[in-house]
Amino acid sequence: MQPDALVRGLHRGDARSVARAITLVEEGTDQGMAILEKLDRERIDRALVVGMTGPPGAGKSTLSAQLIAQLRDRDLRVGIVAVDPSSPISGGAILGDRIRMMRHALDPEVAVRSMATRGRLGGLCSAAGAAVRIMAASGCRVILLETVGIGQSEMDIVALADITVMVLAPGFGDDIQAMKAGILEVADLLVINKADQPGARRLHLDLAAACRDGDKGGQKILETVASEGQGVDELLDRIFLLEEELRQGPGMRARRARSFELETLDQALELLREPLRRRIRDTEGGNRDPRRLAREIVDRLVGRKPGSTAAGGKHGR
Amino acid sequence: MQPDALVRGLHRGDARSVARAITLVEEGTDQGMAILEKLDRERIDRALVVGMTGPPGAGKSTLSAQLIAQLRDRDLRVGIVAVDPSSPISGGAILGDRIRMMRHALDPEVAVRSMATRGRLGGLCSAAGAAVRIMAASGCRVILLETVGIGQSEMDIVALADITVMVLAPGFGDDIQAMKAGILEVADLLVINKADQPGARRLHLDLAAACRDGDKGGQKILETVASEGQGVDELLDRIFLLEEELRQGPGMRARRARSFELETLDQALELLREPLRRRIRDTEGGNRDPRRLAREIVDRLVGRKPGSTAAGGKHGR
Repeated sequence: MQPDALVRGLHRGDARSVARAITLVEEGTDQGMAILEKLDRERIDRALVVGMTGPPGAGKSTLSAQLIAQLRDRDLRVGIVAVDPSSPISGGAILGDRIRMMRHALDPEVAVRSMATRGRLGGLCSAAGAAVRIMAASGCRVILLETVGIGQSEMDIVALADITVMVLAPGFGDDIQAMKAGILEVADLLVINKADQPGARRLHLDLAAACRDGDKGGQKILETVASEGQGVDELLDRIFLLEEELRQGPGMRARRARSFELETLDQALELLREPLRRRIRDTEGGNRDPRRLAREIVDRLVGRKPGSTAAGGKHGR
Repeated sequence: MQPDALVRGLHRGDARSVARAITLVEEGTDQGMAILEKLDRERIDRALVVGMTGPPGAGKSTLSAQLIAQLRDRDLRVGIVAVDPSSPISGGAILGDRIRMMRHALDPEVAVRSMATRGRLGGLCSAAGAAVRIMAASGCRVILLETVGIGQSEMDIVALADITVMVLAPGFGDDIQAMKAGILEVADLLVINKADQPGARRLHLDLAAACRDGDKGGQKILETVASEGQGVDELLDRIFLLEEELRQGPGMRARRARSFELETLDQALELLREPLRRRIRDTEGGNRDPRRLAREIVDRLVGRKPGSTAAGGKHGR
């Protein structure tokens, strides 16, 4: 199928066109690129990307399924991109099974895609971002971007979202103190799922204490029992409220600019792998240290005087 | 301290010089680079890098500690580089605690270093490789390169090793079928740790069946009870036997070439982040798709005609 026809199909919300378009992008084809450039930008601007993250076992998937049900009740088209950056082993399969079990797998107004590493992490962030835009252009009002864990790779992907929801559960709160430094700040909303289980109150208090040190107080904490649908409606309301705030201020624009940069950088680095590999192989590595060779190659690429350290600067600009 | 003095210190096996040199490299300083270029290359060639990998809970750390004890009994200097690429949260700290508990923490003939992501994965592989070389130059006959899990990032790091040991345990063998595709091939030796526990025999049979499809048969499977030191001696003998084979044939040279390329590539990509970020920010992103902008920037960098797809080729050369 030609890109134009595929774009027409996906703008109509046709599920197969959406899936095919994402595949063409993932494969790095010119058609994929052409499709991305023809997407309805207004729909992309209007869509909200919600990152769902948290430790495995906290109930992210159940909560995501419930959020999808709520969104469908409100007659909104929804997308979910589930990304597993952690495992080259069975991650992809598990994710697929999980998604197949979801109640809404057959609903044409729910776009579903799962992604896992195929041998390396590079490009995964960029592929996820493109999938999100394709779903948005197909009419999805909200796209959930779900990862399987809270490792560094997951954080890189969730940074693409407009709003980040961190899902926790009793029993996972033991290292709140350790989490404080990094993850609690990243999350816009902290959901204590399985809030009917022992330890939920304690987790809530710990989280509130940890957040009080930050600027937003404990106000971003919510409780859910996703398995019974409790608190999901309220969570969705909070998400939309936050969206409104972000759109009225400069927040949304700043977040989109950040994710644009992340995605472009991820894809540029991915595209550079092969040219770099070729240059490394073409060099007489000889007795050189790998770091020296890397610097020489990069200096030559960016047109700097060899030996200058500027390319190694950390947070320049 | 000047690089020359530091290099003299680390060549004498001085622990503080080793630690300081690794830090200078991690920080991307010119001194670090100068140190790497002055390292004793013969020692680096002579040292053996053993990758220790496997799922969390299989007993990798206990086994590593036992291997270190064995190596010390044989009067060999040892290094261990423990890398945690998975978690920006508490991973680093856990690793540190774990290492502090090791019996040999105070033995001057055991070099220890732990590394975790500091906000991103890039450069971790290169830093680990440099730490390994510094330890080798300090006289370590064997350097263990240990990771915390079996995700993609861990695999990228373990690929730096000359010999890879995959540590498994009963109860972790449920998805052997899923593992077959990827990880079993990567490992030179498969260790069933906790071999005294129920399920060990079953795991052994499953692994043997999985390996039989491969070329090396089930010969690479060993059993240990690391907590009691059982099988550790045999494992070490097997490691050295494998080393001899690799050094007599082209194997060792090929593996070193691969790790040289991996490390150089990782570091080159890391050095390119800031120049790329600057170029992205300096561009009028406007209505362009991130993938298009990435391709334009890369095409300009590698001197290709804009719009050509060659930079996107997957396994070119």
